[in-house]
Amino acid sequence: MSAASAARRGRGPDELEIMVFERGCHTSYSACGIPYFIGGHVDALDDLIVRTPAEFRSKQDIDVRTRHEVTEIDLDRRAVRVRDLDSGAERQEGFDQLLIATGAVPRRPRLPGADAEGVHGVQILDDGIAIRRALDEDRPRHAVVVGGGYIGLEMAEALVEAGLEVSLVDGASQPMRTLDPDMGELVADALRGVGVSLYLGERVEAFETSGDRVRAVVTPQRTLDADLVVLGMGVRPNSDLAEAAGIAVGPTGGIITDRRMRTRTEGVWAAGDCVETRHLVSGEPVAIALGTHANKQGRVAGLNLGGGYATFPGVVGTAVSKICHVEVARTGLNEAEAAAARFESLSVVVESTTRAGYYPGTTPMKTKLIVEKRSGRLLGAQIVGEENAAKRIDGLAIALWSQMTVEEMTGLDLGYAPPFSPVWDPVLIAARKAADKVEGHR
Amino acid sequence: MSAASAARRGRGPDELEIMVFERGCHTSYSACGIPYFIGGHVDALDDLIVRTPAEFRSKQDIDVRTRHEVTEIDLDRRAVRVRDLDSGAERQEGFDQLLIATGAVPRRPRLPGADAEGVHGVQILDDGIAIRRALDEDRPRHAVVVGGGYIGLEMAEALVEAGLEVSLVDGASQPMRTLDPDMGELVADALRGVGVSLYLGERVEAFETSGDRVRAVVTPQRTLDADLVVLGMGVRPNSDLAEAAGIAVGPTGGIITDRRMRTRTEGVWAAGDCVETRHLVSGEPVAIALGTHANKQGRVAGLNLGGGYATFPGVVGTAVSKICHVEVARTGLNEAEAAAARFESLSVVVESTTRAGYYPGTTPMKTKLIVEKRSGRLLGAQIVGEENAAKRIDGLAIALWSQMTVEEMTGLDLGYAPPFSPVWDPVLIAARKAADKVEGHR
Repeated sequence: MSAASAARRGRGPDELEIMVFERGCHTSYSACGIPYFIGGHVDALDDLIVRTPAEFRSKQDIDVRTRHEVTEIDLDRRAVRVRDLDSGAERQEGFDQLLIATGAVPRRPRLPGADAEGVHGVQILDDGIAIRRALDEDRPRHAVVVGGGYIGLEMAEALVEAGLEVSLVDGASQPMRTLDPDMGELVADALRGVGVSLYLGERVEAFETSGDRVRAVVTPQRTLDADLVVLGMGVRPNSDLAEAAGIAVGPTGGIITDRRMRTRTEGVWAAGDCVETRHLVSGEPVAIALGTHANKQGRVAGLNLGGGYATFPGVVGTAVSKICHVEVARTGLNEAEAAAARFESLSVVVESTTRAGYYPGTTPMKTKLIVEKRSGRLLGAQIVGEENAAKRIDGLAIALWSQMTVEEMTGLDLGYAPPFSPVWDPVLIAARKAADKVEGHR
Repeated sequence: MSAASAARRGRGPDELEIMVFERGCHTSYSACGIPYFIGGHVDALDDLIVRTPAEFRSKQDIDVRTRHEVTEIDLDRRAVRVRDLDSGAERQEGFDQLLIATGAVPRRPRLPGADAEGVHGVQILDDGIAIRRALDEDRPRHAVVVGGGYIGLEMAEALVEAGLEVSLVDGASQPMRTLDPDMGELVADALRGVGVSLYLGERVEAFETSGDRVRAVVTPQRTLDADLVVLGMGVRPNSDLAEAAGIAVGPTGGIITDRRMRTRTEGVWAAGDCVETRHLVSGEPVAIALGTHANKQGRVAGLNLGGGYATFPGVVGTAVSKICHVEVARTGLNEAEAAAARFESLSVVVESTTRAGYYPGTTPMKTKLIVEKRSGRLLGAQIVGEENAAKRIDGLAIALWSQMTVEEMTGLDLGYAPPFSPVWDPVLIAARKAADKVEGHR
């Protein structure tokens, strides 16, 4: 819908007819808001909807057809095959320009019982509706969250807030693997602190059911009672439709585009979680499903499609999250990713505070920098802290974007006043410590 | 003291004898914390002291002499003349290397009554002690703050919190002149909101006294009752001692140094509020008295003096403050400064929120960007908002440092999650709007 809107801004209804087919019932909503709806922080699901199909039709002359699934792209005929999910009718719809914005599909384990009632994904708005309804109607007592990524953790917290006894199972030895273990451990502590039972290094083998309903989650080590299961195992680009049509898909499974969001097929564009993009630090293609990238890419695709000029240069892998009272942020490469990208790196971790030590409400904050050993170039950063900590990652993300060295960063002119930072900002302390370590290696 | 510590890290007591002369009683304290002590947020003044002279002596072998005033620098003899303020004794002390860190002097009006009892500056720790004592002992009811800069505003708020009726007088038409008028107006509103009476565009002509004590502040328009007056009229570099010795001082009144904090005189260094530095956007020398610059410069001077290598490249003019519930931040050039530096600029202001619109605790936030018209290069930024708004200036300060254009900034990978930002971060929205405006000018 970002693309459709941007294209419309470039070309009016007389110049460009825009049709949108959406399999589900809703458009333009914040899927990231679902955990806050479940946790009771957001009252109505409607609050998560930015714009309805009716608004797109009336305000922008964009012909949105919900409950219409595109089942095939026919590049020879320049047409898509569309099924009306209510009537079952199928038809072909021709196009001059096609934009693919099919998003991502949640990873689901291929295990016995994985499709039982009571096992929920968290991706589209209807998932949020289903979980909320299950909480209200079935009054579940034991929830198991499978997967310790952002969504898994946010859902674990939300379910605790909703009054359930919550376990989290993950095959890895730490939750939130986008952080290094030393930083991820702080997140695990926070989860335990609010009463989530963590079973790490345990793979789910099966879901026990009773009739159609899930009743337990089985790992090699134990069987966990579960009348509600939430899958937070990540997503993969939903590029099947594109791939079937012969549109180029990259090693991540995402559709390949150039910086203007053109696929390798003439007149076909793609944007959002279904594409892969370039990681500006590793130089490698990555598929990172995140609303902020999807919105930017959609806008870029739409502007170009509408005759304008815009580019999406890539990402540096910034992400922030709030788990209980703990704020978490990361950007760039973590230690494992730096090694995989063949960087020789060193790391520093500094403990500081979000405000001057004497200022009321100051809280501890850990900042980690990952730095190329010889050049001193910043490769990545992680922050774990409390109120006011996470958004400080933005400065580090911009330093990374600009390929700064930690030596240069020691001079940065960051905002200082006692309510906002110690006189030596945590970012500056970390940069100084890293610069000394780089120098020590010479 | 930053310089002394850094020099000691480079050279041990056997290699380098370090003596420090300080006119006052304290070393290494947070002058920025004084308003929070007055306002009752910080209980004990000791909390503002980072390290005492005794600690410097015992832990770092730095010979700190408080209550010792340097009255003359004799470059021919490579010596300073020092007066022991307690005994009145004077002597000469030789040096091989000299560091001047004389700080700033508060501007005081040359007006009748300006030296009366009850008229206070806010610069050194003893000022804080004096104001606190006046509040406790004299129980003043009417306070007048003269000057609407950061310190003036923070003190106005602190005095309201301490239960006084507070007026603020400033000759300018808005408080906080480092902001553009449209942004400064929001700060004025916040002050009025907590009950501060603002008298803008009014110059103080005299202080009425009764005996030795101040009792009113007189402007051409009115006479304001005052049993406590706080001067917040800014500061100027305290470079008199250096200038008298023939050490080069620049157009701002600050001592001239190179990037390693060397003055133009061999073996003499300078750091902190007494020096001028380069503004990296305007290219002009500026004297900005701010603890974060002073600390950095001190460390750089000390490292170099101790045989190491470090540089202070300059500043971009970042500042943050919290006035009542309003957070204020700025970096780079405002509109007037951009014009003075001969930039042709354009500006955009966007209204957004600190969190996703549906997330609890989201608050409004205004972001302004000042941009060079033809190149689209970011020249400055201002933020006025509430909780969680101000520190976002750091990202903009780093973008400015890296000479980014607003077009490039539209692609920045900033942290997004509902507790921290709308899916389009305010910085991205502002960059987009500015980029469109730059393009519209072509």
